[in-house]
Amino acid sequence: MKSMVQAVEVSASKPSLSDNTADLDRLKRSVRQATGQENITCPLPDMAGVAGSFRDAGFQGAAVVRDTGNGMEIISFFPGMPQKLPGMALDLGTTHLEACLVDLLSGQEMARVSREHAQGQFGADILTRIHYAERNAGLAQLQRATVSDINAMAADLAGRAGMVSGDLMALGMAGNTAMTHFLLGLSPYHMCREPYIPVANTVDIFRARDLGLEICSSAPIWVAPSVGSYFGGDLLAGIVACDLDLEDQPGMLVDVGTNAEVILGGKDWLLACAGAAGPALEGGVARMGMRAGPGAIDKVSIDPDSKFLDYSTIGGEPALGICGSGLIDLAAQMYLAGMLDTRGKFRPESMKERFVEDEHNPCFVVVQGEQSGHGQPVTVRQSDINALIRSKAAMYAVLSTLLQQVGLSFEDLGRINVAGAFGRHIDPEKAVVLGMLPDLPLNVYHPVGNTSLKGAVRAITDCDFRQRIMDAARRVTYIELNVNQEFMHRFSGARFIPHTDVSLFPSVPRPQEVCR
Amino acid sequence: MKSMVQAVEVSASKPSLSDNTADLDRLKRSVRQATGQENITCPLPDMAGVAGSFRDAGFQGAAVVRDTGNGMEIISFFPGMPQKLPGMALDLGTTHLEACLVDLLSGQEMARVSREHAQGQFGADILTRIHYAERNAGLAQLQRATVSDINAMAADLAGRAGMVSGDLMALGMAGNTAMTHFLLGLSPYHMCREPYIPVANTVDIFRARDLGLEICSSAPIWVAPSVGSYFGGDLLAGIVACDLDLEDQPGMLVDVGTNAEVILGGKDWLLACAGAAGPALEGGVARMGMRAGPGAIDKVSIDPDSKFLDYSTIGGEPALGICGSGLIDLAAQMYLAGMLDTRGKFRPESMKERFVEDEHNPCFVVVQGEQSGHGQPVTVRQSDINALIRSKAAMYAVLSTLLQQVGLSFEDLGRINVAGAFGRHIDPEKAVVLGMLPDLPLNVYHPVGNTSLKGAVRAITDCDFRQRIMDAARRVTYIELNVNQEFMHRFSGARFIPHTDVSLFPSVPRPQEVCR
Repeated sequence: MKSMVQAVEVSASKPSLSDNTADLDRLKRSVRQATGQENITCPLPDMAGVAGSFRDAGFQGAAVVRDTGNGMEIISFFPGMPQKLPGMALDLGTTHLEACLVDLLSGQEMARVSREHAQGQFGADILTRIHYAERNAGLAQLQRATVSDINAMAADLAGRAGMVSGDLMALGMAGNTAMTHFLLGLSPYHMCREPYIPVANTVDIFRARDLGLEICSSAPIWVAPSVGSYFGGDLLAGIVACDLDLEDQPGMLVDVGTNAEVILGGKDWLLACAGAAGPALEGGVARMGMRAGPGAIDKVSIDPDSKFLDYSTIGGEPALGICGSGLIDLAAQMYLAGMLDTRGKFRPESMKERFVEDEHNPCFVVVQGEQSGHGQPVTVRQSDINALIRSKAAMYAVLSTLLQQVGLSFEDLGRINVAGAFGRHIDPEKAVVLGMLPDLPLNVYHPVGNTSLKGAVRAITDCDFRQRIMDAARRVTYIELNVNQEFMHRFSGARFIPHTDVSLFPSVPRPQEVCR
Repeated sequence: MKSMVQAVEVSASKPSLSDNTADLDRLKRSVRQATGQENITCPLPDMAGVAGSFRDAGFQGAAVVRDTGNGMEIISFFPGMPQKLPGMALDLGTTHLEACLVDLLSGQEMARVSREHAQGQFGADILTRIHYAERNAGLAQLQRATVSDINAMAADLAGRAGMVSGDLMALGMAGNTAMTHFLLGLSPYHMCREPYIPVANTVDIFRARDLGLEICSSAPIWVAPSVGSYFGGDLLAGIVACDLDLEDQPGMLVDVGTNAEVILGGKDWLLACAGAAGPALEGGVARMGMRAGPGAIDKVSIDPDSKFLDYSTIGGEPALGICGSGLIDLAAQMYLAGMLDTRGKFRPESMKERFVEDEHNPCFVVVQGEQSGHGQPVTVRQSDINALIRSKAAMYAVLSTLLQQVGLSFEDLGRINVAGAFGRHIDPEKAVVLGMLPDLPLNVYHPVGNTSLKGAVRAITDCDFRQRIMDAARRVTYIELNVNQEFMHRFSGARFIPHTDVSLFPSVPRPQEVCR
């Protein structure tokens, strides 16, 4: 492990008339000796502080240095060798930011926080924010919102470790291309207009002060590169974080957040696509939908015979709504209990008192008002299920179309990494019942969590990792599915539970016939 | 000539659905192809501007790049190949700043300006300012004064070339160690306390914005390295500017400004010393003394027989005072006309009506009040001449002591470079008469002007030059003459005109006997 920033222990003789080397040059000489690197530099704004700390410490202690690729840059100095050298990693999501504090010496996670992205006030989705950015000062507002969020998270993380923000010596982050543009103050104007060109896909390492980030002011900031307007650094970081770029046998990374994004490949090639497949799986689209947080229904089971419905919520709290994985569970169980037909339509006759009409919308009552956390029933509308069916159809169609592009079948895959909140909470067995994921042995599926954040952690703790991301960026071929006839054909076939062609899902039981 | 900053002509194909490389990555690709350098970067604050200019120009034009030693950094972009690429060079003097605008493409000087250093308001000399810097906020005030001066000079220079400050793409500067510390906000506290240690002798290249310099904000700023508290970057720049560091035969650089500084050596070794030898040669000490500007008496001749005194002034203006070279001329002529004895004392009997007493001070009237520019007589006191004698004695003693340290004599020297205002205006013949400079063939002496400024120019127009300065810095041995017995002995012997040992000055005529 070679972290982005390292601590180098130094001890120099004190200045004298016969050795009148200047303080900072004396420190540079010591770092030169300790690292074997010839070219040792120090940024102008740090010269006074670094040299002063070195002198105050009696000309010994630890220099905090960064390998610039052309030598070592001294960014801070401690009177003694630090026990920990904290760095921050960030997943720069559209709706949420998730960050953790990592010890750059050991690579260990020290704390983790997440928060809603303050950019949300300017628009819930990317396109709205892109249009907002085109308004006068809009881009600057978006940028400031994120910088404030990051500064607040840095202070929070540092506080949890008994430190202050200024102690954080590096920041690595990964986000989609639009989020990256907003944060860096780059106009997204051409990203959403043919031929959809970002201002920049690669971002050179800069310093915290360049962006007003209130960590150590010369701390290096690494931003994951993007492949294009619709394939961002969060995915690239994810590819490498789950080692897809090293696999001999082709594998997949499936990341369902605001979008569903899928990468297929291994060490030789990488094929990617993305689409707005996921809205039903994130809170907001289903009216009762919510993020996977306390009170969210995340697991549902329905006894096919008695139709008795049981559920659990995150944190065991009274139910407030239903999260993506809960919705998938619910739909799969409803299908198996004969409450949904193969097109995903309600079968009211089997739903009994759980079927109600709400402003002319057919609804399924998951939790009665008297048992919920807010006194209102938690319901799912037919339209929510329709959206889920579209999502799952899109997901399956994406997966199968990608494979078809390279003449592979699902059975050729060694490993399917399922990332994001989706991957963390979902039960692949239920997703297979719905026909969202292919009918493969369950041990093929690996929940890998927030791979964007994991990649950001790896990027600041492992220099080789950053090179792997650059290499992966060059190997990725992005295909546009919205204009792909084959995809549209496969999408139509996948709009059934589990699929028009049930032979593709041999392990999925036929639903219980409705008891009239 | 390889300038610090270069313009690279690029032409890229326009983005399309089949070539959706991002704007900045497209430019980097073009620069990579044009320069053959792999690692092309762009500082965060320039990304939007550079990429935007590239797109607006139709993806062709000229990238302004800096060789970082590890690749190329893009700091600006022009829609077409510029005719000139201006950079600024600065001599950061204690009392005066002198700067010029240089075309980084051709190396040609485009404009030159000078001004009094605004730091003067906080103290005329270095020591006063060092003490001022120790006051609360004193250092910041000194720094701001210089930054404001530099910004004003940059605007002035740019205006003379029909440009604006932001067009300036590089800045190189050289100053003494204290001036460098003040500008960079480094405390001079330990410089004037044994063992006299600066904060830093070497300064890594930084960006204009890091110091609030209002030229192109990512323009690289180069500051000449120092050797120690009493041997600054101005002298190092001077050594290399007059190629002393390349000489096979030992030579000398004599720079008389606020201090007299002398370097002896060549390609193998360099020996340096400095001392407060020069006050009489700069305006301020002699009451009528003034900088070499309009109205300053710069040449004097006295007919030994008639005692008729003739003089010229700079610009031919009515006399206002006398500058260093004028004073040397005057003293030499007075000595040859029998008006000064060998100890430099007035011989009133030969001075006739030009001898007056001013508040009990013996004075020599150079110009009568009715002929001067201000209506007052321009006079020189005995005490001014005494100061001059001390200065010239110190100078000669420095030169001869330095030579003695390495077992050389004046005849071994190939070339003596005389720098500074002193070198530009002085007549070596007169300096030899006084015994200030050794009695050598006059073609040994070469006036080389402001070598600090020349060095700063070379540093931004020639990368090899910067390396030569670093090499020279390592080769310089600085000797402290104030504690040197040999120097004190030689100083005493040199306090006569031309010297106690007249055999050292065979070409100097014996003075005219006084006509009683």
